[in-house]
Amino acid sequence: MKKLLTLLSVLALISLEGRSPNFIVIFCDDLGYGDLGCFGNPTIKTPHLDRMASQGQKWTQFYVADPVCTPSRAALLTGRYPIRNGMTSAARAVLFPDSSGGLPASEVTIAEVLKQKSYATAAVGKWHLGHLQQHLPMEQGFDSYYGIPYSNDMDFVKGGPNYRQGADDPNFYPDIRNYNVPLLENAKVVERPADQNTITRRSTLRAVDYIKKNKDKPFFLYLAHSMPHIPLFVSEEFRGKSLRGLYGDVLEEIDWGVGEILKTIKGEGIEKDTIVVFTTDNGPWLAFKTHGGSAGPLRAGKGTTFEGGQRVPTIFWGPSRVKPGTVSEMGSTLDLLPTFAALAGAKTPADRKMDGYDLSPVLSGEGKSPRDKFFYWARAKLHAVRSGPWKLHILQREPINYGKLAPMEGPELYHLEADISEAYDVASSHPEIVARLLKMLAEHEADTEDSLPDQLAARIK
Amino acid sequence: MKKLLTLLSVLALISLEGRSPNFIVIFCDDLGYGDLGCFGNPTIKTPHLDRMASQGQKWTQFYVADPVCTPSRAALLTGRYPIRNGMTSAARAVLFPDSSGGLPASEVTIAEVLKQKSYATAAVGKWHLGHLQQHLPMEQGFDSYYGIPYSNDMDFVKGGPNYRQGADDPNFYPDIRNYNVPLLENAKVVERPADQNTITRRSTLRAVDYIKKNKDKPFFLYLAHSMPHIPLFVSEEFRGKSLRGLYGDVLEEIDWGVGEILKTIKGEGIEKDTIVVFTTDNGPWLAFKTHGGSAGPLRAGKGTTFEGGQRVPTIFWGPSRVKPGTVSEMGSTLDLLPTFAALAGAKTPADRKMDGYDLSPVLSGEGKSPRDKFFYWARAKLHAVRSGPWKLHILQREPINYGKLAPMEGPELYHLEADISEAYDVASSHPEIVARLLKMLAEHEADTEDSLPDQLAARIK
Repeated sequence: MKKLLTLLSVLALISLEGRSPNFIVIFCDDLGYGDLGCFGNPTIKTPHLDRMASQGQKWTQFYVADPVCTPSRAALLTGRYPIRNGMTSAARAVLFPDSSGGLPASEVTIAEVLKQKSYATAAVGKWHLGHLQQHLPMEQGFDSYYGIPYSNDMDFVKGGPNYRQGADDPNFYPDIRNYNVPLLENAKVVERPADQNTITRRSTLRAVDYIKKNKDKPFFLYLAHSMPHIPLFVSEEFRGKSLRGLYGDVLEEIDWGVGEILKTIKGEGIEKDTIVVFTTDNGPWLAFKTHGGSAGPLRAGKGTTFEGGQRVPTIFWGPSRVKPGTVSEMGSTLDLLPTFAALAGAKTPADRKMDGYDLSPVLSGEGKSPRDKFFYWARAKLHAVRSGPWKLHILQREPINYGKLAPMEGPELYHLEADISEAYDVASSHPEIVARLLKMLAEHEADTEDSLPDQLAARIK
Repeated sequence: MKKLLTLLSVLALISLEGRSPNFIVIFCDDLGYGDLGCFGNPTIKTPHLDRMASQGQKWTQFYVADPVCTPSRAALLTGRYPIRNGMTSAARAVLFPDSSGGLPASEVTIAEVLKQKSYATAAVGKWHLGHLQQHLPMEQGFDSYYGIPYSNDMDFVKGGPNYRQGADDPNFYPDIRNYNVPLLENAKVVERPADQNTITRRSTLRAVDYIKKNKDKPFFLYLAHSMPHIPLFVSEEFRGKSLRGLYGDVLEEIDWGVGEILKTIKGEGIEKDTIVVFTTDNGPWLAFKTHGGSAGPLRAGKGTTFEGGQRVPTIFWGPSRVKPGTVSEMGSTLDLLPTFAALAGAKTPADRKMDGYDLSPVLSGEGKSPRDKFFYWARAKLHAVRSGPWKLHILQREPINYGKLAPMEGPELYHLEADISEAYDVASSHPEIVARLLKMLAEHEADTEDSLPDQLAARIK
């Protein structure tokens, strides 16, 4: 009798809670905070994303854990600052084709967490967490992989035209034949050079196909578009269509893809069981002028720990699971792992330091964001901290040539909510806040002393 | 029989077209392009304006004819560049309390145009087109007036605290007792100093009351809020409510007011017969730091002819008369007079040069914007021209101290749709476009040689 009651209460709970939701993360590359219509872009048309935002939650203070590609991705998938798993380095900004490292097998990804609950898992798109076999997605909890293993500008034809040319001309279309990037199906190269012109379209269609085939079980789909990273490529049907030039064409194709995915979710009748997150790995690559995006009102872009480098346009969507509205509380890609774990009833790793928070109370509209602080790391150095509306910088990088540290006269303090462009340093009039944030920085730095060693510096012999 | 047929066809046309629409223009003061949620602001909450935009048209390339108050307002009401009616001056940026001039009686305003069709007309809020009796709204076609006659910072208590203090502190609340601005009911001063803390609220309630009383006839309501011009004032109930500080509090009260107006229109059952336009007189006053707004991704602000000075966040709303969507075509406050005239079946003045275009085909979704060019004037000097996506600057003002002309090495050319922040001068690589735009500037300048004399320089003896 007791067993029966327990069984009945478990069944009641399951029916109350519904099935575990599917999770889809649509992750762009170098998309700027100001590049979507719903985030204020005047000339790029993103009707599908705008509708996704109005039906879901538009997060206006959402962060990635690092302003460049490899560390940002490592943090999203593990819920840990990249310093902890060695996925940031003073020696090299990211992984390159001659790198031998990657995300350590000992790290636990979202895919591995959800495998506790028998989720189907797939990675589609850019990986950039190690391209040797032992670092590919299937070694990190994904059932399958389809995409390019590192950035689309990294593997270029030597002696060919300048592989980053064209930034002065918004309508310069690069030639895929100048690049030699491989396209992988699981661990096998199936196309080289990858036809990057159709890569956004093909990644989208892969995602659509995956959703249709997996609609009857909980799944996690990580769709990491390799665009709008330079060199920019777009399908014939979007070429020349945007007022914004090639960069806008690329965005409008990504927006089309979002539309296709949401349409598929509805068409398959799983909209009540699915949460879709749209975001990007870091801010816009400003050095590439009109081939790079816009951070909107935010200061600087990719590679810097100013807001333009790390605050990203983020949308959560899920009819009946995400309460519509604008959320101006703090969140981070670090928080996806604990949030998905909570919603799926899975456990987060208990044997290591985790940096994320469970945002599910905000998604359901039942509570406030538990995130009240954020640390800004770049090139394995702690640059800044945010606590409530206050941000204290102790290191800064040059806005364009972001490999270089910029000279500073002392710590700079900004009120990010009133001074949205980080324009007015108020350190001198708020010494008590400066002191409190300096202490937070010191404590956090001490807390990372047991981190794994640098995984990015090693090269293939 | 012939007369009867004519009468019948006229009646049929009237029933087909419906009644002439009511027009409400909600005009802010120094609101920045990036200050509304739907235009990308991360911390100011504008749910009513966001909904207005999603139900109506959000215009992302909409201009005011001058980057400061008096000339911008003159242009909106007359459909003419302010140089034509003498409402811009090399001597004084705007009208001041010691000015004796104002909008010439010979000018024809929107209110006068609509009077052809027996519209009821009202001006509520800031006027700033002349405060002597002969220049007040009732002399320009308005049945009534309620508001302050010039900017809210202009009439201050001499020897009191610095009348523009507090810009470094987003939560500094100025004291109305340091100002001596009069509040007028028609031509009579009814309160001095005006209680500016409640001015947004009281202006809104006036507008609501006016709509209720005039719902049975076509009306034109010009609601020109005196906020968010510094010094900033807000009602008790919005004080300290915004993440953005006082500036955000003020915006959130304006947003509340928009909600009240739209609610009243629906409540009175006139939503199908009413078009509401929301916009502002010029860009944000950046010198006032967090007490000024944000131009979002646009360059510079108020007082300059960069986009941040003259491109303004604009929304057209009108269920059944405005087709929802984002409009990235060009428009201007210069176009309101001909657009309203077309929709009301009224004639535009035929005896003078007009600078506006009829945007009604865009509102209905039936056509493209006829505006393909725009001229940028400041302090009675022609600074720049836009033709399609191209903008050529021949004069520029300092971004903060905008009274001063900035040094230039030569004309600068920007592609505004691909380079949304006017960051990349491409004059040297596009000489043919530079030449074409220089010719347009010369022709336009020649076309203004018959303008009325300067109306802003004269002072009360």
